[in-house]
Amino acid sequence: MKTIKGGVTAAKGFKAASTAAEIKYKGRKDMLLIYSESPCTAAGVFTSNVVKAAPVMWDREICNGIHPVHAIVGNSGIANACTGELGKRICKETADAVTNLLGIPENSVLVASTGVIGMQMNMEAVKKGICDMVPKLSDTTEAGTGAAEAIMTTDTYAKEMAVEFELDGKTCTIGALAKGSGMIHPNMCTMLSFVTTDVSISHDLLQKALREVANETYNMISVDGDMSTNDSVMVLANGEAGNSEITEEGDAYNTFKEGLYTICREVARMLAGDGEGATALFTVHVKNADTKDNARTLAKSVICSSLTKAMIYGHDANFGRILCALGYSGVLFDPEKVELSIHSEAGNVLLFKNGEPQAFDEEYATKVLSEKEVIAEVDMNLGNEEATAWGCDLTYDYVKINADYRS
Amino acid sequence: MKTIKGGVTAAKGFKAASTAAEIKYKGRKDMLLIYSESPCTAAGVFTSNVVKAAPVMWDREICNGIHPVHAIVGNSGIANACTGELGKRICKETADAVTNLLGIPENSVLVASTGVIGMQMNMEAVKKGICDMVPKLSDTTEAGTGAAEAIMTTDTYAKEMAVEFELDGKTCTIGALAKGSGMIHPNMCTMLSFVTTDVSISHDLLQKALREVANETYNMISVDGDMSTNDSVMVLANGEAGNSEITEEGDAYNTFKEGLYTICREVARMLAGDGEGATALFTVHVKNADTKDNARTLAKSVICSSLTKAMIYGHDANFGRILCALGYSGVLFDPEKVELSIHSEAGNVLLFKNGEPQAFDEEYATKVLSEKEVIAEVDMNLGNEEATAWGCDLTYDYVKINADYRS
Repeated sequence: MKTIKGGVTAAKGFKAASTAAEIKYKGRKDMLLIYSESPCTAAGVFTSNVVKAAPVMWDREICNGIHPVHAIVGNSGIANACTGELGKRICKETADAVTNLLGIPENSVLVASTGVIGMQMNMEAVKKGICDMVPKLSDTTEAGTGAAEAIMTTDTYAKEMAVEFELDGKTCTIGALAKGSGMIHPNMCTMLSFVTTDVSISHDLLQKALREVANETYNMISVDGDMSTNDSVMVLANGEAGNSEITEEGDAYNTFKEGLYTICREVARMLAGDGEGATALFTVHVKNADTKDNARTLAKSVICSSLTKAMIYGHDANFGRILCALGYSGVLFDPEKVELSIHSEAGNVLLFKNGEPQAFDEEYATKVLSEKEVIAEVDMNLGNEEATAWGCDLTYDYVKINADYRS
Repeated sequence: MKTIKGGVTAAKGFKAASTAAEIKYKGRKDMLLIYSESPCTAAGVFTSNVVKAAPVMWDREICNGIHPVHAIVGNSGIANACTGELGKRICKETADAVTNLLGIPENSVLVASTGVIGMQMNMEAVKKGICDMVPKLSDTTEAGTGAAEAIMTTDTYAKEMAVEFELDGKTCTIGALAKGSGMIHPNMCTMLSFVTTDVSISHDLLQKALREVANETYNMISVDGDMSTNDSVMVLANGEAGNSEITEEGDAYNTFKEGLYTICREVARMLAGDGEGATALFTVHVKNADTKDNARTLAKSVICSSLTKAMIYGHDANFGRILCALGYSGVLFDPEKVELSIHSEAGNVLLFKNGEPQAFDEEYATKVLSEKEVIAEVDMNLGNEEATAWGCDLTYDYVKINADYRS
């Protein structure tokens, strides 16, 4: 498994393009197109929010079916959520515009939107953007990065990644782009992330691998506890690597899944660390829990605690807030058994053990808490299960960004 | 039902005192004592956090029993939570010190603490504070207000209230004090609030009334989603009003419960509106839901949404965030049926109906959102159940207060 340069255009046969279509933002890229001439198997996991954006309903239908997929078209600025019948129509017209221009079959285009909820899209702008992008489609690294840039909203940098590995003596690649960075609290789903691979794999196994990997990666992050109406992660696999199609679980499946996991974990960490206004990535590792589900619930409860997040921002070892967040997670445990420490590149501090606060050097603790990644290590001393969750600190800038995001 | 001046000393036979014991804070009051010479029936509801502070465990025991209670002793600065055996011992020694000085029976003193978690209390300071307070006990309004001031942490003002009503031709009174204003997200429990009344009522009915009222008031507020380790609301009823003891549900019980509800709702609204850093009280009223539980869950989901709270701070009618928060509440509903408007003293704006955003004047909406109380009215169009929840906006000051609260 080797990390390589690039993102969605890293795998063979995938092209991308982006443009400034002025859907809402002015003077910056806001549309992207990803395309594979070879037909792709597609899988997706989507928001479990009852209020689902129009593109989510469109994509779910396609990913659940076995139609070959050729393209993803996406925009930032407007989420096309809470937009009623008109929103659904815009979704179909957007896909159809791509279908017509590329000469590909109906229902082979996935659609994704991110931005303000409850605002209608301007179809003319969308169509103009698509016309502009089709002739620019390119398999260069730059084209992939451009697509990653076009989907950004409050992200401070474009998020992409690619890995390479071998199957049947053939070089295989998985690449991805993703966007955050607010309304991030995925549950059985993710924020927007598009993954492309040249691996040949059956629809069922692609969906299975994606769901399992998403549970351990995207579903274990939170920036602000707000689960979006548009969360989607979609994978396109076009088979151009030339491996024998993966149709059962085994070594090849495991290798592919490991690649997918590596990509999704790193992208999830990027999303958490670049959460709106964040100055630090906050990782919580819960170990020796009684069940896997409880380990996950405990870890997520801590990364979602506003008070804990503000404490990370303040570099203050006010660890009672972490114990408090474990305590209201809904999981039963014995507080006297919990062992809690924080660590980072600057060192390690034991804070709580045997039901009592431990003496520690405040200045040293502040140093440990001042790194770019801070890890809370929670030992439940109850069993053998573990889980990791990723979040970020809560800062003035989070409030600033969200008090006037729409305007 | 009449609102009158005062708080915990408003009801007959209740005295209070406060002092600066330097438990953690310097140069401000940090201890309070409430006392009734007549023995009181006591009821309490407490945090459902698995991590419970030592005083919570002490009080629960006493409130569950039928011992008469005479006093509440409380402190701010240190929460006596996550403090192990020593914390429990300090709790007992504190109660015993009050018992000895006042010459009242063992186990007749409730104890409450609020402040930093995971820090041990200095028993000498506590004892000195108690010795200082006992001779100062007084039934004046000022003594009650002093007690309300002593329990404050990040509250910007002391919270107290009292109401008066008649039972059997006798004037009855209920008074209360309470403190917020961070780590506020009660669940089957509340933050610290002490209620005193001269009504005569059985232990079972006092407990029943308190639990039901707390569910509709304290349990319907959230400042930051963090449920405290110390949440407690306790009521002392000393019977000095002279009404016939309330031993069954009926008119007298209903009148008492209405008084208790009035007090608790107003105090809950004060706590929400004075949430850490808050500039506005944010009220969410969900109506025509299919079940009462769903109405409550939907309303609470919205007041807990960081993005919605930041939008209130920004006076920005970005209503998609409210729909989004309804959608991830866990309640199933049809988004197309939801009708959403916001109102305040400045007016009323319809935002969403029939599955589509409604046209509205942005400037007017901003005016409506700029009042001290902003109300979101959510009509689910599914049934006949309703619920109200209270929260506040998310501001720079919330982050500021909590990035360096401990130091």
